[in-house]
Amino acid sequence: MKLSARNKLQGTVARVDHGAVMSTVVVRLGDGQEIVSAITKESAEELGLTQGDTVQAIIKSTEVIIGKD
Amino acid sequence: MKLSARNKLQGTVARVDHGAVMSTVVVRLGDGQEIVSAITKESAEELGLTQGDTVQAIIKSTEVIIGKD
Amino acid sequence: MKLSARNKLQGTVARVDHGAVMSTVVVRLGDGQEIVSAITKESAEELGLTQGDTVQAIIKSTEVIIGKD
Amino acid sequence: MKLSARNKLQGTVARVDHGAVMSTVVVRLGDGQEIVSAITKESAEELGLTQGDTVQAIIKSTEVIIGKD
Amino acid sequence: MKLSARNKLQGTVARVDHGAVMSTVVVRLGDGQEIVSAITKESAEELGLTQGDTVQAIIKSTEVIIGKD
Amino acid sequence: MKLSARNKLQGTVARVDHGAVMSTVVVRLGDGQEIVSAITKESAEELGLTQGDTVQAIIKSTEVIIGKD
Repeated sequence: MKLSARNKLQGTVARVDHGAVMSTVVVRLGDGQEIVSAITKESAEELGLTQGDTVQAIIKSTEVIIGKD
Repeated sequence: MKLSARNKLQGTVARVDHGAVMSTVVVRLGDGQEIVSAITKESAEELGLTQGDTVQAIIKSTEVIIGKD
Repeated sequence: MKLSARNKLQGTVARVDHGAVMSTVVVRLGDGQEIVSAITKESAEELGLTQGDTVQAIIKSTEVIIGKD
Repeated sequence: MKLSARNKLQGTVARVDHGAVMSTVVVRLGDGQEIVSAITKESAEELGLTQGDTVQAIIKSTEVIIGKD
Repeated sequence: MKLSARNKLQGTVARVDHGAVMSTVVVRLGDGQEIVSAITKESAEELGLTQGDTVQAIIKSTEVIIGKD
Repeated sequence: MKLSARNKLQGTVARVDHGAVMSTVVVRLGDGQEIVSAITKESAEELGLTQGDTVQAIIKSTEVIIGKD
């Protein structure tokens, strides 16, 4: 399936933390930068996310803020 | 100012396209991957975004979807 | 690819309208209800969206507001 | 009150799960498809959401990603 | 209808600008601060938004970033 | 750093509640209205948010829904 979301960043799962209904997933990119994702715990479990997994961080372009010094 | 947004990815502006009220900005990361941002044209102009600018792509963790093969 | 996004609603493209940098896509669901999506024109063109296409409307659960009378 | 949000999908609450500060609400649409919403627990309690409630799942068009096979 | 969205800020429409598919609406709050909203042009027209209108700026709590000096 | 996000509302932290992975922050504006933000607990702790702190509630214009009676 092709997605309209412009941003599909390849990376590796560095850490997963579970709360009661939400979980956070840390994805490490090729240049060492990290992306944190907050998803439902149900999603995290369904995907069976574990450290070292190759994943994509998918972000709609309307969600990206630009900061400039 | 420190931001609660977990994701502040450093990159370089590769391209800016303007519509009537919205603009798209392409940011190239260190590993060659690109992030597209859709912001208001007013914002793009106020920041004076031009090709080659060093910028940050700021994304709230609740906006990041994880995809896994 | 499996997505963490909880919501993947099946439907049919009922209409696509293009602006300069943004496009709107209307997706009709099985019960006759419609979902409108605003995506970049570049995305709409890359997916080659046309009336009658079978598509999925993908929505992160953190983006859904509940209204109750 | 009329809302600018394009998407107001009618459905029935199928399940509510509470965490410490966040809750998830599952809404069943007329065609059997389900929409999951992650809202603050405070909101879920204020609306008094219970199984069987008729609700609307409200989604801004800029939050909807299109997927196509 | 009651909404799960925590944030319903009362204000007055200060300006509306239309593009091809998107419009921006500026809402002035009681303390003089302004909120800009980017909605589909179709929504802006359906609500018949004009300068001076009393409106609510509705924002899901998961969309709000906190900045601190 | 200048941000593309149109909305940077000044206010004071009225309350912070922590869950396992998510926290909610209530910000009081100058006109008495309040904005609730749901952020990761990690972010809330890193910013060291406490009652009385002067903060900004930063919101992308694409996230703001307009309601009109």
